[in-house]
Amino acid sequence: MDFAFSDRGRELVQRADDFMRECVYPAEATFAAQVAERPDEWDSPPVVADLKKEARARGLWNLFLPHAPWGAGLTNLEYAPIAELTGRSPYLAPEAMNCAAPDTGNMELLAMFGAAEQQDRWLRPLLEGEIRSCFSMTEPDVASSDANNIATRIERDGDDYVVTGRKWWSSGAMNPRCRVSIVMALSDPDGPRHRRHSMILVPMDAPGVRVVRSTSVFGYSDRTHGGHAEIVFDQVRVSAANLLGGEHEGFALAQARLGPGRIHHCMRLIGMAERALDLMCQRTLARQTFGRAIAEQGVVQEWIAESRIRIEQARLLTLKTAWLMDTVGNKGAAMEIAAIKVVAPETARWVIDRAIQAYGAAGVCQDSPLANLYAHARTLQIADGPDEVHRRSVARQELARWR
Amino acid sequence: MDFAFSDRGRELVQRADDFMRECVYPAEATFAAQVAERPDEWDSPPVVADLKKEARARGLWNLFLPHAPWGAGLTNLEYAPIAELTGRSPYLAPEAMNCAAPDTGNMELLAMFGAAEQQDRWLRPLLEGEIRSCFSMTEPDVASSDANNIATRIERDGDDYVVTGRKWWSSGAMNPRCRVSIVMALSDPDGPRHRRHSMILVPMDAPGVRVVRSTSVFGYSDRTHGGHAEIVFDQVRVSAANLLGGEHEGFALAQARLGPGRIHHCMRLIGMAERALDLMCQRTLARQTFGRAIAEQGVVQEWIAESRIRIEQARLLTLKTAWLMDTVGNKGAAMEIAAIKVVAPETARWVIDRAIQAYGAAGVCQDSPLANLYAHARTLQIADGPDEVHRRSVARQELARWR
Amino acid sequence: MDFAFSDRGRELVQRADDFMRECVYPAEATFAAQVAERPDEWDSPPVVADLKKEARARGLWNLFLPHAPWGAGLTNLEYAPIAELTGRSPYLAPEAMNCAAPDTGNMELLAMFGAAEQQDRWLRPLLEGEIRSCFSMTEPDVASSDANNIATRIERDGDDYVVTGRKWWSSGAMNPRCRVSIVMALSDPDGPRHRRHSMILVPMDAPGVRVVRSTSVFGYSDRTHGGHAEIVFDQVRVSAANLLGGEHEGFALAQARLGPGRIHHCMRLIGMAERALDLMCQRTLARQTFGRAIAEQGVVQEWIAESRIRIEQARLLTLKTAWLMDTVGNKGAAMEIAAIKVVAPETARWVIDRAIQAYGAAGVCQDSPLANLYAHARTLQIADGPDEVHRRSVARQELARWR
Amino acid sequence: MDFAFSDRGRELVQRADDFMRECVYPAEATFAAQVAERPDEWDSPPVVADLKKEARARGLWNLFLPHAPWGAGLTNLEYAPIAELTGRSPYLAPEAMNCAAPDTGNMELLAMFGAAEQQDRWLRPLLEGEIRSCFSMTEPDVASSDANNIATRIERDGDDYVVTGRKWWSSGAMNPRCRVSIVMALSDPDGPRHRRHSMILVPMDAPGVRVVRSTSVFGYSDRTHGGHAEIVFDQVRVSAANLLGGEHEGFALAQARLGPGRIHHCMRLIGMAERALDLMCQRTLARQTFGRAIAEQGVVQEWIAESRIRIEQARLLTLKTAWLMDTVGNKGAAMEIAAIKVVAPETARWVIDRAIQAYGAAGVCQDSPLANLYAHARTLQIADGPDEVHRRSVARQELARWR
Repeated sequence: MDFAFSDRGRELVQRADDFMRECVYPAEATFAAQVAERPDEWDSPPVVADLKKEARARGLWNLFLPHAPWGAGLTNLEYAPIAELTGRSPYLAPEAMNCAAPDTGNMELLAMFGAAEQQDRWLRPLLEGEIRSCFSMTEPDVASSDANNIATRIERDGDDYVVTGRKWWSSGAMNPRCRVSIVMALSDPDGPRHRRHSMILVPMDAPGVRVVRSTSVFGYSDRTHGGHAEIVFDQVRVSAANLLGGEHEGFALAQARLGPGRIHHCMRLIGMAERALDLMCQRTLARQTFGRAIAEQGVVQEWIAESRIRIEQARLLTLKTAWLMDTVGNKGAAMEIAAIKVVAPETARWVIDRAIQAYGAAGVCQDSPLANLYAHARTLQIADGPDEVHRRSVARQELARWR
Repeated sequence: MDFAFSDRGRELVQRADDFMRECVYPAEATFAAQVAERPDEWDSPPVVADLKKEARARGLWNLFLPHAPWGAGLTNLEYAPIAELTGRSPYLAPEAMNCAAPDTGNMELLAMFGAAEQQDRWLRPLLEGEIRSCFSMTEPDVASSDANNIATRIERDGDDYVVTGRKWWSSGAMNPRCRVSIVMALSDPDGPRHRRHSMILVPMDAPGVRVVRSTSVFGYSDRTHGGHAEIVFDQVRVSAANLLGGEHEGFALAQARLGPGRIHHCMRLIGMAERALDLMCQRTLARQTFGRAIAEQGVVQEWIAESRIRIEQARLLTLKTAWLMDTVGNKGAAMEIAAIKVVAPETARWVIDRAIQAYGAAGVCQDSPLANLYAHARTLQIADGPDEVHRRSVARQELARWR
Repeated sequence: MDFAFSDRGRELVQRADDFMRECVYPAEATFAAQVAERPDEWDSPPVVADLKKEARARGLWNLFLPHAPWGAGLTNLEYAPIAELTGRSPYLAPEAMNCAAPDTGNMELLAMFGAAEQQDRWLRPLLEGEIRSCFSMTEPDVASSDANNIATRIERDGDDYVVTGRKWWSSGAMNPRCRVSIVMALSDPDGPRHRRHSMILVPMDAPGVRVVRSTSVFGYSDRTHGGHAEIVFDQVRVSAANLLGGEHEGFALAQARLGPGRIHHCMRLIGMAERALDLMCQRTLARQTFGRAIAEQGVVQEWIAESRIRIEQARLLTLKTAWLMDTVGNKGAAMEIAAIKVVAPETARWVIDRAIQAYGAAGVCQDSPLANLYAHARTLQIADGPDEVHRRSVARQELARWR
Repeated sequence: MDFAFSDRGRELVQRADDFMRECVYPAEATFAAQVAERPDEWDSPPVVADLKKEARARGLWNLFLPHAPWGAGLTNLEYAPIAELTGRSPYLAPEAMNCAAPDTGNMELLAMFGAAEQQDRWLRPLLEGEIRSCFSMTEPDVASSDANNIATRIERDGDDYVVTGRKWWSSGAMNPRCRVSIVMALSDPDGPRHRRHSMILVPMDAPGVRVVRSTSVFGYSDRTHGGHAEIVFDQVRVSAANLLGGEHEGFALAQARLGPGRIHHCMRLIGMAERALDLMCQRTLARQTFGRAIAEQGVVQEWIAESRIRIEQARLLTLKTAWLMDTVGNKGAAMEIAAIKVVAPETARWVIDRAIQAYGAAGVCQDSPLANLYAHARTLQIADGPDEVHRRSVARQELARWR
């Protein structure tokens, strides 16, 4: 294992850190104020556009994308500490650097599997940060932790495909700048287990696409992120040229998308945990009970120590996973991806929870980012595969050594 | 220990259960729809008024209040299973039966310590469910887990008191029907440790009372509950007759209020946990992954079993605490009150969290009550004294046996 | 629920408590010294015989047995606090009061299902405390958490049965006073699932009974308890009159034995936890680090508080279970028996573990009883059904409400 | 961070792994048999001497010692995977490779701080594996987690020092080959906080050295390891030339000894956890309940997955700590050493505990190494500083960033 960085990697981390300190943290108050002024918008407030301009000027743009010629060409290991930094301010920094989900995963799919025409139409403006996109996989009527439950149909009709079904948690789709969805749908119900579904690009303005509502997360609307849309696809007809990758290859594409997507979440979760630990230290040093700083209490010190101990371990496992993905590929790193997908949200959640407790009432309300971060981390124990599915996957690979 | 119920107690539990099944659960959908129609109201929607009428007609009214002649005269043990039932639908049932915090605690204070005039003016309409009230104790600028940090000043000036300071988490105060606050303030900074504060009744329309904003809980505004107000008291002048109890007796009054208040929360938390367990069972029996009901998975069965095991224990400790309060008084039950204040939120939180996991994405959004219940339970690990303060209190009483 | 005691129950608890304080605790040092002097004995040392005499004189004898005319006729609820007291000194008190496993369960089987002749030969001397017995159910070659795996054969041959197989964890069988084993064996391999096994009384001196060795528990030989024997039954021929209960009714008998046996373990585990908490308080008050008593450290106070909180809950659930067994029978209390079988060892183990940590090195060695208690509690998460089997049982009963 | 190995490091790991598979694992049964035959010996059985010869022949000898000219000169990072391998068979492999505590720490002290004469007399035979040694720091009468409590006196008298006091947990001292103890004693009670103690070499045969008894660990005597001796130093007079390092520098020497000593324990604990996970997988694949292998149960798969996830993290943090010690020194790695000292025993303990549960009754007795490993791991949450002291140390360093 070698987690040492290249000079370029090191330089970019420093540049990202400067950007966070000089631009992003100071913009957080502005962000909150602008959001408060425009409570009905489903988009990030103006300050984010400013940050995007600045990030791009500093060369901090599309760093997530390894694929030539589109992306920055960083390895996962090089990108990890940068993504971690963006996680410290997860509602501003990832979008500022055009590294926000779900667009990142969509750009990756388009870069890897998109036809030239598809790349021209969707990938270019996404890479420019001009439009947004969404990913429509999970469905309200079935347990999506088993991908085979996905029931939205896609059927060939002449030169077109017709898509019919109901999706939800299409994050970002409430954003008026969201122009396209990548839809996972059942194309061959009787095919072999992992060759039943296809992915297709569906423009948001295609007839029959109906955005029904947005689901909230622990009371948070996630408006600045474009919400989480429930979308009805009512006999939506799109050109056969919109198919992404080959027919019935949806499962393979989903796997290709989810590996990097999962580790990106994990990298950012480490950053969220670090931010929460910073806040916990600062707050407990600043407040007093019974005549001494809260930070002097043994119980609080256990929270702080345990937070540091857990974060260190989670970060190292994330780095190892990134290094494996770089050296033996996503498939070779499958166990570690599953492992870190369990560890990172759990770690972040635990640290944030203790920070909330240390903050007291300010921890659960809008006066700290903590409750929002908590909701985010908690949700990632369900999104992209629930913990129990990932644990089962780890166990099976472990047991396979002995069979 | 004898947890057996009187005939009257048993009959009231049955009546409350009937009310829940016949009226409250069926009203939950109406409640949600009415809330959605009037998103800017800081009050419960019309269906709650209907439920109040019905509950009163059924004799399910003010059951929380033991004090003659005002209340129903139930013991804590008798009230426990009724409060638990209301906790199964915590945004409708407690208010429907006029048993919702913080009014309950305020009514109890007024019944116990209020002058006749105070009772006429405030207690009567509260018992009628006509007005609401709030309780202003905690402050944004200090760590309120140490009550001695409370800094809002109350100073005598002729026949008046003048109140100056900033309070927050005055729950219910955003409700336009909220007419009075019981304010805890520093009256004698140099007095003995537990005789420095006084409580005073401050009408919400007194000059100088300024409601600044409402704090949210994990993204939830708690509008139907009247929110959680931050209130500035800017040289608010009220008649000396508004003093509640004696001068500098605020601490003793707070203790008198908090004992029953805490156990009421605990009783309802048991109900929340039971509701979450019901939902977890129903959902996991109804949904399938990998060819069988989720409820058949060993990991899910561990969640269900552990939930049942924890709830049983938490309920029994709550009942024991209630029984002790009835038989040896709140002071004699101090250790158990502290213990249950730790156990009940933790139990509810754990069960709700597992129910969320079993629900998947539906668990974190508005399609189930679970995320909201979670936020509620989590907050009760901070409100009315954080866990660590209660644990320290238990430890000290335990150690005192050996000193 | 009514956990109130009868006058007789209350009086016996007081008497048992007196016995513990006046006789048992003071005898612990003698016990240790006598054990050290006779390291090769597989029996309790002389001081236990003295305690037996004293206990009997005080009317504290066979209190575990509800069945007339043999036993004391206490309800489970009445016996619970007495068994808890004996658990505070588990290597002396249960045997002193003739209430030690596995003899208790064997006496119960004999009292309920034994023929008159069997009772004369085995039950009488057991009730007198003259002989010991063992119970041979679990086997080294199969996973016994599934009772259907039990493979030792019992076959009819004329007026005899012939028993062949290998058993282990026949606790007490190393004791030279152990005269009989109740053996569970496969009598009808093709019978219906719960009618395949029979129980039979096998004298320890029957030809073909070979005690192979004793298994230790975390390094402890449990010599004073008679160890845990591995026994080979090599074509052991016994009279058909030795069959206990009916043919193929072994499973039903095992259930009848295990219900009370499990709750007795739980009652004693509560006592062990209480003893550990006592020791933790005493030790942390007596020792100093960094200038103050260890008991003043916040982290240690959390251990103490959490110990108290957990013990209270576990005791209440044990009492409820006992009350249910008394009022609706063992079958009606099946879920609670399974629940408490999970809770009590886990609680005791947690408390003992924290006491060990508070003790430091003295906690893991012979200078405190803690490590031995820990091994005992840990083992009870496996013995009489592992936790995961009991949790599954709780879950299934919970889910059954909704099917 | 760069965890890549040198060619030499890689080659040695392979060689150690070969040795484990070819020699050590096959010797475990012999070890057990020889121990059973000579139950009264306080030394490892003959097979270990054979393994020592073999290890030395293979160049696997004294690999722990970085200090020229005595040791192998490996970095901590290079030694880590080798020590981990030895931890897989902790009662044979470390001694076989002359890498067993407490001798390792003593050799390190002698190599760093020993006078030439001291090295000739004690270090050479220790490096040859001819004699053993012990370390006498902790005391029965005080809480040694605060080093300032150490009360054994050392006083200058002419050309001699006189040592008086009582030590315990002098591991290895029961071994007849143990020839010397390094004793930590109070030399200047009024000196500055960290300059009050000295270390001195005391031959075990010096008049006044009295080995009183051995303490057991959870019932295990640890005979093959030389037990854990309680030693009375009754006015033991030794030459002033026996002082190790300077006067009153005991605390600094202890720190120098403990850093490497702690991480060596951690490395071996990772190996113990791996061994337990191997055993858990093998056993649960081999045994059946209710018609399928135990390994197919979801709950068991959670144990396996969680074990793998925890081990990976603990190993990475151990490697990072080793790398830091190599690159910035023990002082620069102080926080990580404290962190890993908490993580590694906790991880090993958790994994071993789940393996015990998976094994059932065989897990707690001598038929598997698990209970013994558990006792070992549990004890390391106390030895070399209890968890809570290390956590406090981590917290203070974390908070120091903000003060």
